[in-house]
Amino acid sequence: MTRPRFAPIPAALPATVPFVGPEELQRRIGSVFDARIGANESGFGPSPHAIQAMQAELPRLWQYGDSTSHRLVEALSEHLDLPGDHITVGEGVDGLLGNLVRLMVGPGDAVVTSDGAYPTFNYHVAGFGGVLHKVPYRDDAEDPQALVREARRTGAKLVYLANPDNPMGSWHPGKVIQDMLEELPEDTMLVLDEAYVEFAPAEAVPQISPGDPRVIRMRTFSKAYGLAGARIGYAVGDPDLIAGFDRIRNHFGVNRIAQAGALAALRDQAWLADVLANVAAARDRIGKIAADNGMRALTSATNFVAVDTGRDGEYSRALVQALQGQGVFIRMPGVAPLDRCVRISCAPAPELDVLADRLPRAMALIG
Amino acid sequence: MTRPRFAPIPAALPATVPFVGPEELQRRIGSVFDARIGANESGFGPSPHAIQAMQAELPRLWQYGDSTSHRLVEALSEHLDLPGDHITVGEGVDGLLGNLVRLMVGPGDAVVTSDGAYPTFNYHVAGFGGVLHKVPYRDDAEDPQALVREARRTGAKLVYLANPDNPMGSWHPGKVIQDMLEELPEDTMLVLDEAYVEFAPAEAVPQISPGDPRVIRMRTFSKAYGLAGARIGYAVGDPDLIAGFDRIRNHFGVNRIAQAGALAALRDQAWLADVLANVAAARDRIGKIAADNGMRALTSATNFVAVDTGRDGEYSRALVQALQGQGVFIRMPGVAPLDRCVRISCAPAPELDVLADRLPRAMALIG
Repeated sequence: MTRPRFAPIPAALPATVPFVGPEELQRRIGSVFDARIGANESGFGPSPHAIQAMQAELPRLWQYGDSTSHRLVEALSEHLDLPGDHITVGEGVDGLLGNLVRLMVGPGDAVVTSDGAYPTFNYHVAGFGGVLHKVPYRDDAEDPQALVREARRTGAKLVYLANPDNPMGSWHPGKVIQDMLEELPEDTMLVLDEAYVEFAPAEAVPQISPGDPRVIRMRTFSKAYGLAGARIGYAVGDPDLIAGFDRIRNHFGVNRIAQAGALAALRDQAWLADVLANVAAARDRIGKIAADNGMRALTSATNFVAVDTGRDGEYSRALVQALQGQGVFIRMPGVAPLDRCVRISCAPAPELDVLADRLPRAMALIG
Repeated sequence: MTRPRFAPIPAALPATVPFVGPEELQRRIGSVFDARIGANESGFGPSPHAIQAMQAELPRLWQYGDSTSHRLVEALSEHLDLPGDHITVGEGVDGLLGNLVRLMVGPGDAVVTSDGAYPTFNYHVAGFGGVLHKVPYRDDAEDPQALVREARRTGAKLVYLANPDNPMGSWHPGKVIQDMLEELPEDTMLVLDEAYVEFAPAEAVPQISPGDPRVIRMRTFSKAYGLAGARIGYAVGDPDLIAGFDRIRNHFGVNRIAQAGALAALRDQAWLADVLANVAAARDRIGKIAADNGMRALTSATNFVAVDTGRDGEYSRALVQALQGQGVFIRMPGVAPLDRCVRISCAPAPELDVLADRLPRAMALIG
């Protein structure tokens, strides 16, 4: 054997990665970022009660976590007012999306998403041999009607919609999503990524029967709850679908500290409310910084802001690079016309002060 | 859609799970175990430096972990004296085994293991459509010659060997494994599960060139390093194989606290030496408790002891159940003739005191 004989699907995959992380970027540029505002992490942090709960759990970290995340499922069941068999806990939305795709998508199966939407979903679809069909954004938002049409045209197993949307921060009223369900082909399941839903207006949340087999909803403790590094999230859906995860998931895969932290974070809704207020203020601040520099912030229902540079993707890429050189980590959408924007995560004032200071410098550098 | 339309491979999988965890067992019996000595966790715990490092990292848990686990890979590279491109970090051996199987095994591909060896490996093989071929243990040890013969007969993509072995605690000299590599078919890769290798004599470790494409080695921080709940381990192999993991793994899947804890644990080799001494003493104590009750402990090179009840699998199952009822969590091998034994994890003295107290009571109950 001179080279690994990979199985057919992985053998055909590229050696790329969905995202180069900020630590790796720091190593490449040889210094630590002064403002880490590119990964939609929450610099406002998790609830202090979550920190305490995780600290208290450290002496028991020699034990595997509970394979069923029972206490967290119980708490989510109460929080969401639905039975526990509608919920599965996993290693963040990334892990849950991977397992969902593995569960539903066979080689050659069609999957529909928007061109420029979450790359890690696409990574999983390709990783299990699915065939991606992309429809364009419309007015900087995912286009439900186009997604439905493409699902019908291709007979898709899954159609992906993030609401609110990443990377643009736009959102649709829940009613629009309810209507989508009615129009989808019978065998198409909607993957509703609600990673940012806590930041959105109440009317962004669709009223869907918890056991509706036409949709699976993904939520996370990484964003509003401030626990990105803990790797814990959950999916809500039809109990038959949820039970399917038990056929393939890594049963002892969720970190014990993460389970304790998520449980305490969920219970501290007052902290969550504070975070939401801080994020709203940070959105306004980013909008002001953008305006001060001749750019326009798009309306956002998330913890990040897409800032329209008024130029093209080449300019945005140069700006992201120049900001990195100035110690500021941000990201940007991957495709036109979204890539006329850069994407800036909400953060505490000191990091936005850094942004306010460095943005004009970076712009001056690239002209 | 009335039922989920699973993809063909998951559609054919059973709804079972590899292991029912101790928390779930506690809920079933309605009380908390006095001795948790069934999952080969380390009650001696991780290094206090690891606890400190994880505590210090908690305020940064709002950040995703480093997707490349760079600092840990660097430290492992130094510890193992091999280049970093030979190492990939993942979510424990369970997670790494899943990714390896996904990378190498296509539907219908043959995979060889021993009947009674690690069930989670089998779970992953079935989960990706592989076909398992099992050979019997021989003298309570995995049988390298039989594994090689079966790999030749079936043209296996992978052949699994744990050294030391779980659930029996036996081990082969490294030379035996080196010889296996010479005898394997050209296209068969050896999966060498070294989860328990730190507990074994030095001569159990085979001398294999780090880039040898015929083998991948799996190691973990869950056992000797006492971090089972953190979900972190690593694989060592040919750089082309290791790079393959980047095509499919959940790139931001490793918990940030786990990364900090594993790094500090690796650096505290003095603590590891203490743990190994404590484990050796606990093995002796379990042997004495077994002998006091008319049973025989098998020689173990791990942090658990297979205790031969002198009876059959039915008796062992009754004993495991009776001990659970007495507040003691242990496990047992799944197949004959291994299942004449029960498997007891090494633990601090108080838990073994509980075992010494409850074992005769449980035996009296089942007669």
